[in-house]
Amino acid sequence: MALAKDLTKLLGADRVSIATDTLAAHAADRWFASRTPEVVVFAESTDDVSKLLKFANRRGIPVTPRGAGYGYVGGCVPVQGGIALSLARMKRIKEINFADAVSVVEPGVITADLQNAARKKRLFYPPDPASMKDCSIGGNIATNAGGPRCLKYGVTRHYVLGLEVVLADGRVLRTGGRTHKNKTGFDLIGMFVGSEGLLGVVTEATLRLLPLPPARATLSASFRTFRQAAQAVQEIFAAGFLPSALEIADAFTLEAAGEHLGQRLAPKGSAHLLVDLDGQAESVTAEVHSLARLLEKLKPIGARTALGEVECEELWNLRRAFSQSLKATGLTKLNEDIAVPRGRLTDLALFAERLRKKYGYPIACFGHAGDGNIHVNIMAANYHTDKKVAKKVGAALDELFAQVLAWGGVITGEHGIGLAKQRWWNQATTPVSREVHAALKTALDPRGILNPGKFVASTK
Amino acid sequence: MALAKDLTKLLGADRVSIATDTLAAHAADRWFASRTPEVVVFAESTDDVSKLLKFANRRGIPVTPRGAGYGYVGGCVPVQGGIALSLARMKRIKEINFADAVSVVEPGVITADLQNAARKKRLFYPPDPASMKDCSIGGNIATNAGGPRCLKYGVTRHYVLGLEVVLADGRVLRTGGRTHKNKTGFDLIGMFVGSEGLLGVVTEATLRLLPLPPARATLSASFRTFRQAAQAVQEIFAAGFLPSALEIADAFTLEAAGEHLGQRLAPKGSAHLLVDLDGQAESVTAEVHSLARLLEKLKPIGARTALGEVECEELWNLRRAFSQSLKATGLTKLNEDIAVPRGRLTDLALFAERLRKKYGYPIACFGHAGDGNIHVNIMAANYHTDKKVAKKVGAALDELFAQVLAWGGVITGEHGIGLAKQRWWNQATTPVSREVHAALKTALDPRGILNPGKFVASTK
Repeated sequence: MALAKDLTKLLGADRVSIATDTLAAHAADRWFASRTPEVVVFAESTDDVSKLLKFANRRGIPVTPRGAGYGYVGGCVPVQGGIALSLARMKRIKEINFADAVSVVEPGVITADLQNAARKKRLFYPPDPASMKDCSIGGNIATNAGGPRCLKYGVTRHYVLGLEVVLADGRVLRTGGRTHKNKTGFDLIGMFVGSEGLLGVVTEATLRLLPLPPARATLSASFRTFRQAAQAVQEIFAAGFLPSALEIADAFTLEAAGEHLGQRLAPKGSAHLLVDLDGQAESVTAEVHSLARLLEKLKPIGARTALGEVECEELWNLRRAFSQSLKATGLTKLNEDIAVPRGRLTDLALFAERLRKKYGYPIACFGHAGDGNIHVNIMAANYHTDKKVAKKVGAALDELFAQVLAWGGVITGEHGIGLAKQRWWNQATTPVSREVHAALKTALDPRGILNPGKFVASTK
Repeated sequence: MALAKDLTKLLGADRVSIATDTLAAHAADRWFASRTPEVVVFAESTDDVSKLLKFANRRGIPVTPRGAGYGYVGGCVPVQGGIALSLARMKRIKEINFADAVSVVEPGVITADLQNAARKKRLFYPPDPASMKDCSIGGNIATNAGGPRCLKYGVTRHYVLGLEVVLADGRVLRTGGRTHKNKTGFDLIGMFVGSEGLLGVVTEATLRLLPLPPARATLSASFRTFRQAAQAVQEIFAAGFLPSALEIADAFTLEAAGEHLGQRLAPKGSAHLLVDLDGQAESVTAEVHSLARLLEKLKPIGARTALGEVECEELWNLRRAFSQSLKATGLTKLNEDIAVPRGRLTDLALFAERLRKKYGYPIACFGHAGDGNIHVNIMAANYHTDKKVAKKVGAALDELFAQVLAWGGVITGEHGIGLAKQRWWNQATTPVSREVHAALKTALDPRGILNPGKFVASTK
């Protein structure tokens, strides 16, 4: 095949593959859409990426960059074929520096690996997407990944101090640096973070690290109603707490957890809260108890506190089992990471209940209550085999997104648009916003070779 | 004058002025460059701004937007004349909502006014530029303003959830919303925040608010050497503290404070630290004492702790008097807000000392030690009257910036490029970075009418 031959000549045989299983492994992410690329390139250096893009740009060949392939919206599916560009081999942690509180990494570094390496130097990399043991920093940057700790610590963008990015035509941009503050010109870093592989390929990142909080405490509490749990969220903030995580789960999620883990292990009630605090040992100990006292007024069914990593992780294992429990139902789990203004948590739960009744699908809501970023999981049998089911689920999603947008919410809080949300892109943005998106895409990738077929195209 | 007449016809007489004192008042900010505009327009609505830009874009007339005019780098000086666009009349706080933890404001709202209004609802807007009682949110957004609290809480960008921006041709862009998380498309908000009025005019912002921390504590400590103070900074982080502010001051700054305030009131020693903690009352009380114990090992000359707003502000009044004390020397204070990697704090102080000896100007270093963002103040007599002085100071600045950049630092940590840093713009950026800046400017303001004459121009 001509393209593979040319690429082999350009980059060497060890960086290019057209093996059937390799092509298949680079056709999709964790969502269900897939398209086999013509060829997979494994970049090992910035120079590889630069050479490849120069070549592809000249010929107008699609290049779809990918990290670990753990996205949830089909963002790195090479829908127009061409080249799947894997950054997985660029996985060196080049530096972790305590005095400057920075790390310099290649894009293929697994997020949890960076966190563990930082921890050994008493440093802390806060972003914690659920897939952190599998996903890569490059993918996190491409999607501006979040996670429970974003409530207190912010998203990936807040931790990127410097970037090396290869532009569509192969030019190498270096922007930002290793200082924690920088006002030199426009925020080019922000433009690339979250751009879902449409504007450039990140080949190195300088990340901001925080001092490692020495202690952690967790409060787990169950409530009779979702409304009470949502009320508890507001009370926690009113008392001036900014927890490092504040997670909520609804009745259906708890039921599934009961089925999966056994009723004895699953929390009681129709709603569940998990509150994490971090900081100095003495402080978090005192604070978790005053939180428990605060919530007592709302008469939780049960509440437990935990101190230290081991105990806290026990309470979190439950939270982490939610996704698994839902999958164990045997139904297809359509995870929509909408976000609503925080005051709409109860409205959202009530609306999901109405959708459930109208369409007959169980709907499980759980997630990051603190920032209103709730995973609304529509649970459907035969979704992939029965077109009628897919259509009906689509109609339920249309209703869900229309309501979320009407509340001033958004159709994606952390996963991105990718393919999964493309259908609602026009509804979720204004015409002028789409014009500005197109102007940026055209300015940076005029030939439209980077991840084509997604939510914006070059107008050249 | 024809332009004023046309604008009066377009917007009404009450929004347009060519009065001499009004023109003079819109010729500069807090830096010393100035240029009188031909006319000042006072926008009172988004529609005013849209009409004005449509008109100006058609005719290619420069429009330089300005907030309260409290910038430090001449960013809103209308260097090519034309129209100075004041947003000062758009100063409504449209909403402060506890349940959603957001505020919706017009750009002319004074930062401290928003903070006070939020505080009344137990909410907290963290960004705290030194000029917060005078500067406006619109200006803060244009410069991505920082302040001492950025160490823990991040810069203005981290608090902007939604923007209404009028583009150069008058189109009105609405992007983002009122959710605390949002992954809908590219980060358009980030592109406008910090763009110094070169890409669009912000007419409304939706801001993220935090729960108000109920308590505050401050530690003030003096040291024999700057090195010891810088060492203390590292020890504080190593113990897992993330203070809400961590300020350092050098010997010359302390001397000037002694002259100005009286030796009895000024801190002793050759370096001074101010550490702020916020959170739950019990926690900050315990923490400020453990911080004091931690620093005892470094043998400070004197240390004091304070609890609560009133006591803490007493210690901060000293810090806030530094700038004033330096001005009281009668010398021109050239405040350069460089940032260095945090591990370079002592190197920076030693370098400033060498510059002082070489050029003969006193140099005062103080500022945000936590993020390496130090205000290096070169103190020069007759700076504005004696060209030789200006030239010599320029040479000292050349050396300073070259060294800061060589360390991986930046020439501006929070004030921006404006006019003050324009001379070093090429040195502080790579050619590809400047090409990308130009591509963005060209994409969004092809005729180059917005704040022309600054660090980037349209290439159309």
